Amino acid sequence: MQSQTLDTTQIKSSLSQQYKKIRQASEALCQPLKTEDYVVQPAAFVSPPKWNLAHVTWFFETFILKKHLPSYQEHNPQFAYFFNSYYESLGNRTFRAHRGNMTRPSTEEVYAYRAYVDKYMMEFLNSAELTEEQKDLVELGIHHEQQHQELLLTDLKYILANNPLFPAYLPPNTENIDLGKTAQIPSLTFTDFEEGLHSIGYEGADFHFDNEKGIHKVFLHAFRIANRLITNAEYMAFMDEGGYQNFAYWLSPAWEWVKNEQIEAPLYWHKIKDTWHQYTLQGLQRVNPDAPITHISYYEADAYATWAGKRLATEFEWEVACKQLNPEIPTNAVFQESVQLSPQPETSPKPCFYGNVWEWTNSAYLPYPYYQKAPGALGEYNGKFMINQMVLRGGSCVTPMSHIRPTYRNFFHTHERWQFTGIRLAEHVL
Amino acid sequence: MQSQTLDTTQIKSSLSQQYKKIRQASEALCQPLKTEDYVVQPAAFVSPPKWNLAHVTWFFETFILKKHLPSYQEHNPQFAYFFNSYYESLGNRTFRAHRGNMTRPSTEEVYAYRAYVDKYMMEFLNSAELTEEQKDLVELGIHHEQQHQELLLTDLKYILANNPLFPAYLPPNTENIDLGKTAQIPSLTFTDFEEGLHSIGYEGADFHFDNEKGIHKVFLHAFRIANRLITNAEYMAFMDEGGYQNFAYWLSPAWEWVKNEQIEAPLYWHKIKDTWHQYTLQGLQRVNPDAPITHISYYEADAYATWAGKRLATEFEWEVACKQLNPEIPTNAVFQESVQLSPQPETSPKPCFYGNVWEWTNSAYLPYPYYQKAPGALGEYNGKFMINQMVLRGGSCVTPMSHIRPTYRNFFHTHERWQFTGIRLAEHVL
Amino acid sequence: MQSQTLDTTQIKSSLSQQYKKIRQASEALCQPLKTEDYVVQPAAFVSPPKWNLAHVTWFFETFILKKHLPSYQEHNPQFAYFFNSYYESLGNRTFRAHRGNMTRPSTEEVYAYRAYVDKYMMEFLNSAELTEEQKDLVELGIHHEQQHQELLLTDLKYILANNPLFPAYLPPNTENIDLGKTAQIPSLTFTDFEEGLHSIGYEGADFHFDNEKGIHKVFLHAFRIANRLITNAEYMAFMDEGGYQNFAYWLSPAWEWVKNEQIEAPLYWHKIKDTWHQYTLQGLQRVNPDAPITHISYYEADAYATWAGKRLATEFEWEVACKQLNPEIPTNAVFQESVQLSPQPETSPKPCFYGNVWEWTNSAYLPYPYYQKAPGALGEYNGKFMINQMVLRGGSCVTPMSHIRPTYRNFFHTHERWQFTGIRLAEHVL
Amino acid sequence: MQSQTLDTTQIKSSLSQQYKKIRQASEALCQPLKTEDYVVQPAAFVSPPKWNLAHVTWFFETFILKKHLPSYQEHNPQFAYFFNSYYESLGNRTFRAHRGNMTRPSTEEVYAYRAYVDKYMMEFLNSAELTEEQKDLVELGIHHEQQHQELLLTDLKYILANNPLFPAYLPPNTENIDLGKTAQIPSLTFTDFEEGLHSIGYEGADFHFDNEKGIHKVFLHAFRIANRLITNAEYMAFMDEGGYQNFAYWLSPAWEWVKNEQIEAPLYWHKIKDTWHQYTLQGLQRVNPDAPITHISYYEADAYATWAGKRLATEFEWEVACKQLNPEIPTNAVFQESVQLSPQPETSPKPCFYGNVWEWTNSAYLPYPYYQKAPGALGEYNGKFMINQMVLRGGSCVTPMSHIRPTYRNFFHTHERWQFTGIRLAEHVL
Repeated sequence: MQSQTLDTTQIKSSLSQQYKKIRQASEALCQPLKTEDYVVQPAAFVSPPKWNLAHVTWFFETFILKKHLPSYQEHNPQFAYFFNSYYESLGNRTFRAHRGNMTRPSTEEVYAYRAYVDKYMMEFLNSAELTEEQKDLVELGIHHEQQHQELLLTDLKYILANNPLFPAYLPPNTENIDLGKTAQIPSLTFTDFEEGLHSIGYEGADFHFDNEKGIHKVFLHAFRIANRLITNAEYMAFMDEGGYQNFAYWLSPAWEWVKNEQIEAPLYWHKIKDTWHQYTLQGLQRVNPDAPITHISYYEADAYATWAGKRLATEFEWEVACKQLNPEIPTNAVFQESVQLSPQPETSPKPCFYGNVWEWTNSAYLPYPYYQKAPGALGEYNGKFMINQMVLRGGSCVTPMSHIRPTYRNFFHTHERWQFTGIRLAEHVL
Repeated sequence: MQSQTLDTTQIKSSLSQQYKKIRQASEALCQPLKTEDYVVQPAAFVSPPKWNLAHVTWFFETFILKKHLPSYQEHNPQFAYFFNSYYESLGNRTFRAHRGNMTRPSTEEVYAYRAYVDKYMMEFLNSAELTEEQKDLVELGIHHEQQHQELLLTDLKYILANNPLFPAYLPPNTENIDLGKTAQIPSLTFTDFEEGLHSIGYEGADFHFDNEKGIHKVFLHAFRIANRLITNAEYMAFMDEGGYQNFAYWLSPAWEWVKNEQIEAPLYWHKIKDTWHQYTLQGLQRVNPDAPITHISYYEADAYATWAGKRLATEFEWEVACKQLNPEIPTNAVFQESVQLSPQPETSPKPCFYGNVWEWTNSAYLPYPYYQKAPGALGEYNGKFMINQMVLRGGSCVTPMSHIRPTYRNFFHTHERWQFTGIRLAEHVL
Repeated sequence: MQSQTLDTTQIKSSLSQQYKKIRQASEALCQPLKTEDYVVQPAAFVSPPKWNLAHVTWFFETFILKKHLPSYQEHNPQFAYFFNSYYESLGNRTFRAHRGNMTRPSTEEVYAYRAYVDKYMMEFLNSAELTEEQKDLVELGIHHEQQHQELLLTDLKYILANNPLFPAYLPPNTENIDLGKTAQIPSLTFTDFEEGLHSIGYEGADFHFDNEKGIHKVFLHAFRIANRLITNAEYMAFMDEGGYQNFAYWLSPAWEWVKNEQIEAPLYWHKIKDTWHQYTLQGLQRVNPDAPITHISYYEADAYATWAGKRLATEFEWEVACKQLNPEIPTNAVFQESVQLSPQPETSPKPCFYGNVWEWTNSAYLPYPYYQKAPGALGEYNGKFMINQMVLRGGSCVTPMSHIRPTYRNFFHTHERWQFTGIRLAEHVL
Repeated sequence: MQSQTLDTTQIKSSLSQQYKKIRQASEALCQPLKTEDYVVQPAAFVSPPKWNLAHVTWFFETFILKKHLPSYQEHNPQFAYFFNSYYESLGNRTFRAHRGNMTRPSTEEVYAYRAYVDKYMMEFLNSAELTEEQKDLVELGIHHEQQHQELLLTDLKYILANNPLFPAYLPPNTENIDLGKTAQIPSLTFTDFEEGLHSIGYEGADFHFDNEKGIHKVFLHAFRIANRLITNAEYMAFMDEGGYQNFAYWLSPAWEWVKNEQIEAPLYWHKIKDTWHQYTLQGLQRVNPDAPITHISYYEADAYATWAGKRLATEFEWEVACKQLNPEIPTNAVFQESVQLSPQPETSPKPCFYGNVWEWTNSAYLPYPYYQKAPGALGEYNGKFMINQMVLRGGSCVTPMSHIRPTYRNFFHTHERWQFTGIRLAEHVL
């Protein structure tokens, strides 16, 4: 508990600095947008950028200012209706699929709302002796905004990729384009782990979510896990061998999905004159064979592993391997801060379990032993989603680095692809 | 035909003046919009305002500049994909329901596209001796843009009405609000017409659409037709007597529609503290009992007429009555130019068959005798929609006055309500 | 009106004889069925045969026995719930799409229900002096049962055609199979009709429906109409020339339907080793090029006519031509009684407007002038369907001959194909 | 392994006896059916009884007779198309939702098919020295038919319950009806289990499925588990306290399901004059407060546990408790053989983990460590369903007793309710 050695002024200063930094980062990410880009919602799972910007603000207003700053006057009582995401405890809200039809409040008004809340948050952070609960809430709000920074980028990618003009969000990265100069990708090897009992879950005093809390013991049979992610070249071999046409590699609902949705390649891939291209935040580019495969569903990750004669790791195997192989986040890990916003080839021989792409695991998203939902609206943060989703680990190229931990549990449905998702193989030691 | 007495310079001048006026009018209608309002599409039948602005421009570019101005360079070949509405002859186009997901080309680019096309249209209109075909095409483009001015307003109303903030497009009309001062509405009377043979359809040299062309004879049995439109007060009597709850007034698919969509009032009506309000382009207002009922489907118009013991007129009865009772458009007719953009009480004892609301008729939209589709893409303008729709007559408060004629045939599906539609009763003379 | 010369005993005898004959005919049609065939409903528009048998019985029970035979005890009060088709006035009923899930009452119970009602109907028909209203109701019940005989056959065809075993309802007709021996089909010619005023609608004292009642005057411009139906060979020429691939022949919603439903041929057609076959009530057979095309939607009929440079007749043109060319039903007309239950080649040079296939007209199904719905539940018989459907004329090979008249108006939606529907061309005389 | 002590004649005799017994049992279950009941499919997850009867026969024909009895002539090659359930390896099959539209092959033909296959199966079982693989296949076919006996009963319950006449399958059980005479239900207590490593999965030589194979170690934290199932009375307390109206008890997709499907009670429950009734295979009956709650989804089981302040057990906790508390199946366990075909009150103080209702666990259906799919079509038996379903344990009142084991894993989707499913509570020892 190093924070106990700090005096309260330092904590407050640190929290208010963190707050400012995060809030500025969200707005910096929106710099390249046109006003029109802030508004639309081409699929129900996508939120309009201006909604993301306002929702994280609403979170600070609702859970902190309205409850803990007595002098605070709500910016606009109607905004709660627009910017509540899924908190049933907090009353009616816009039906999710309609967010993209709301032209007002305008983007300008949303920025004004942010400034208003920021002003009072700084007043709150600077004026008072914060209680532990209040500090926890501010920290939660900060990590919540980080989650929405990632969503903002993945949603924006979906919005722009959906446009036949394929507009770029970032200027093209010239290095990326020289695909002739193949990187040296180490060959695919596996590290063995012996069977045994392991401690799983977060232990410590720093910020963490309730879903990873609860250190508990898990017995693992001997397994081995890949030292790197599967590359586009490797995935294209699966495609070339008819992976999308052969039911034998697919789970039953996966095969229905492939047929009903006519899936033939990862999301954002387009075959142009016999060459696979993919939409990236730098625009449409040739697929880099050395970069990790991404924008694939659990179904595709599982089918690839079956085709390769392996399987995905469980989230427990993944966590044990991560903690052992990467006690610290490697300096070359590809996160939002590295500004590429696309997965990068893993040229280092040293394994890296962080960033680049979220790694699908073969574990269902379920509560850990002893898991307890928090009381009230914050109890809806994680617990109510613990069904029919699979766990992903490690973070991606659009996750803020400071947001991630070895115990961090992300979760998506088995058919979802708009996050930066990828594959790390594993198998049992027989 | 006075135009035959003009020399060609005058015609050109007149056409280029008309062109300029129409193009400016479209942009003037967009003055009150925020950039965000240009983008969205809350229902498949609505087009985003920037799509409307670009589509009418694409029409001039495609049918005139690209074919008749040899020096013309297409502004952007990709735009055809975005802004073709329904012309199968002209290649692929954005799936209609996806228009609202396209953030690019931006509104700014759309205005630049308009300016570019305007520049070459003026060059075309000023430089050359126009052929008859060319003049017809320019006229068609002008009337096409007028149709989209109306759609722009009705779509915009739908976009803003869909927002829980109920933002106003125009500043509130204070006269409208004083609902205590009831207007003097003449009582509902009927004019008799004897049975006989009548000429139906457009005859003359001025602009008209192909669907109204083809003067032909129709025999009508003796009928009578109402001297004014049904008011909100009259419609509320139907509602108060359980009109929406009694199947006996409704056609079979109408009753399914009422039950499935849980229809209880006209579109845009909200009951607030026991008082009916309606969203108007001036914002949410109390329903004016004296104004004509509007935003009702054919199903509702027909159910009302059944409840009232009458029926809707056929389009032929309507045309005969209109030509006889209103040889000229009355000066008090409520069109887009009257700037109210909402139906106004009919206080004059003299019947007016023009403006205010489109009048549902009991005629299916089918070809007139001898109807011939034009060859090529323009043949798709009207003919291919002649099935499963009903005819409406007379224009509305958002139709440009110069766009309307006694023979003008509009058409919508029986469940559609987002146009300004209303009711005029008729019956047979027994 | 010869019936006026009969004394009442004769009328009653005639009515009770008609009743018996019709009731026996329905059961005779079910002779070839297996118990399983009575139960299913492969599409919402199809009713299970046992439902058809029970519904017509419920009609007699509800409108006659329960109201006009005081001693009558309802067979089973729950049956009303099962066998009411669409009469809102008569309370709740099984949701139409669920009829095929009801295994009880069993087929045996349905036959017992028929016998029970027949017993009391005979008592009613024999015992009393019937009022005019009562006689009308019995007649209506008889014609209602005839309508359901036709539906029984078309629904059964759909049920069996949907089974990959293609089970036959009738033993194969060996004559039909010898397709090498081509019939002599007269070439396609047209009869001219001059412009003029015509009387349309039923006039007389025999049975007729309310939708054809109301003799009224219609002015027709000069037209010509084909002397025979379009054959399979002629329709296949349209198919061979890419009729289903070229949007130019299709109405806009028709083209959406062709693409969405992937329509490539009439209903029940299967291409087997490059040869078109069609499921018939005699099983799967090669398409007979000389037989009239059937099982096509309005959309297909209209597209064919467009391709052929003609159009469909209006229902008024059709009625005028029919009355003039066929004052009597020709003896070679193909109706249910001819026991073929498939359209037969028209080898006679004399036009026949009756039987074989229902002829799509280019008239919307709307009320005639002066049309009045009957009061009460019987008012729901026809009137509430007068929207968004098109009129068909003439009857088909599965219509009882005694059911048809020149003024008879049938109606279906523009995409429906499971009735025996076909094409007769027309055009204006220029 | 007692079977190792038998000579081969005995094994064969035993297998052929088992075969005969199982096949006769399936047909005995169909005795009370009317022909109509065999045909329909009121929901996609239900199979028509005649399909169930034929499909299990097709399984023996396809995997044994066609491969292992050289003289065998296929009964009807078209049947494979109808009666293949989900084996992609074996070619095209009827789309699942269309099974209920197939009136042919008739029930009579299905019984003839069964007799034909039985004749050759007996020839096969009696004539030859069976290899281990062949014996395994016959055993698999037998257990497969047992699974479909259970489905036949649950599907049939759904078919009859869907009929407003609520026809009974069995004569009413008079004992059941005397609800006044309340059974003595022991109070709800919990047995504690200490933390530790446990062996999970099937070990032995008797029949088992591949999904339970693979003895592996699992570490469990200390937990306690309920000594009996939750009763209808206990579940009604949850309902009375607004369980279905309070989002706080429900997982997020569960709450969507409750609202969208308007769920207010378990499946088959009807409130009649303020008293809850449920459809049972004996017809509609008052809900017995002492019987275990059944026909609830995972969502409902989880919501109940949340409301009760407990949770569901994991499948590992369940298996450990079952093996320890019930080393043998208790003689009072309620299975298909007890002929009640409805859950019975648990009056004994001794816990029973078998029969009555399948117990939802809080474990996702995923492969055990070292799991390998069998090669070929049989590999599709279980493995491809291991996603997005939850595990159930213990068997139900319609499961054949000889079909169940402590390691048996059943699995359904979280919203499914037509199986006999119920609740056993658990919690961690803190």
